[in-house]
Amino acid sequence: MNERTPPVRKVFQAELHQVGEELIQIATLVQQALGSARTAFLDADIQVAEEVISNDARIDFLQNDLDERSIDILALQSPVASDLRMIVGALRMSASLERMGDLARHLAQLARLRFPEPVLPEAMRGHFEEMFDIDARLVERVISVLEDRDISEADQIFALKSELNLKHQQVFEMLADPNWDSSVPTAVDVTLASRYLERIGDHGVSVARKVSYLVTGDWAPATDSHPTGHGHIGADAGE
Amino acid sequence: MNERTPPVRKVFQAELHQVGEELIQIATLVQQALGSARTAFLDADIQVAEEVISNDARIDFLQNDLDERSIDILALQSPVASDLRMIVGALRMSASLERMGDLARHLAQLARLRFPEPVLPEAMRGHFEEMFDIDARLVERVISVLEDRDISEADQIFALKSELNLKHQQVFEMLADPNWDSSVPTAVDVTLASRYLERIGDHGVSVARKVSYLVTGDWAPATDSHPTGHGHIGADAGE
Repeated sequence: MNERTPPVRKVFQAELHQVGEELIQIATLVQQALGSARTAFLDADIQVAEEVISNDARIDFLQNDLDERSIDILALQSPVASDLRMIVGALRMSASLERMGDLARHLAQLARLRFPEPVLPEAMRGHFEEMFDIDARLVERVISVLEDRDISEADQIFALKSELNLKHQQVFEMLADPNWDSSVPTAVDVTLASRYLERIGDHGVSVARKVSYLVTGDWAPATDSHPTGHGHIGADAGE
Repeated sequence: MNERTPPVRKVFQAELHQVGEELIQIATLVQQALGSARTAFLDADIQVAEEVISNDARIDFLQNDLDERSIDILALQSPVASDLRMIVGALRMSASLERMGDLARHLAQLARLRFPEPVLPEAMRGHFEEMFDIDARLVERVISVLEDRDISEADQIFALKSELNLKHQQVFEMLADPNWDSSVPTAVDVTLASRYLERIGDHGVSVARKVSYLVTGDWAPATDSHPTGHGHIGADAGE
């Protein structure tokens, strides 16, 4: 082996590193999509909504690219042990991230469907701002976990998901309140939007749990602890 | 090599076959869960609802088992080309099937939440019976595709998904009808139930597309063709 040919192991490590970088890149696009979906959804901004919808193809493309790269690594390098689990984990994390992008797109599509009206009744705006905030903090920590493999960040993600489950549950309580005076179609939109936001958090939890597993070898505990009610039905953490 | 030691290749083929059998086993449990969820949901049968909810752990267990088996095959056999794609495909199909089981459980949880009342207003019963029927036919064909790798079955699955998308869209139209006289909480339940049934079909499509891909090397076309409306938002075929 001369100086110009890096050792096989080094090439392999570079390829694994590249997979990790690509996961971070996709997660960063998801973060942008979520931020824009927030603007589109809360401010009835049709232009931003259209951007989110068309930019989702980029996330799908990168996921495909990452998956093909991962399959090539499996075929050419035949990794074992922790390297193998990292590649299989990447295939799954990319699927979760891609789905988060889809859900941000669904929020933008709701905004487009109701434009020029806002999707939400004014009374619910504050509650949904908080849900978007929780998802934004959660996604930020997902990116950190992917970058640093710091498991304490994962715990914060699970805590944020519990907060999100509670907010999701509260949406159903608000809708069931006899003083609620919006229309049934608005209730339908609100139900779907809350579900989408809850699912975004849940996929973020999936990613964090997979990183935890890769680092520690143990599955992090699931956070879904709603014994009854719609929170239980809608919240799928740990599945 | 003596007669008692089968050739390595033969062992490997047997392992691949076993993975295929386990996928069929999980899909069959999903079929049962969906059938029971239908009874629980349409007939407000709390006992059947509890069965669906507790039996879901079995599907989760089998998925884990299949995934561990697949990772072992990757580690020990280092498959390449179509064998590698089959294993990676199995990891993804098992995730879709497990998710279908979760969604059947969510339908049972809705039944339990509203018990002893039915979830649906009587006027919507027929419509949801049809949605459950479409999902049942779709899951039956998913099992056939897994058994026979017959791509013509896959086309029928895509056609059933288009029917399901239409029914899902019609639910929103029924809810938006000014003559609709049910409560907002009922509208919330109906929205979620319709979304769960649509998602079950969508995951079935994912499985069928993966089998098609394994057989033909081409991705089957996506069937999501709703240009506007909630059908578009809720229907995720081909993602």
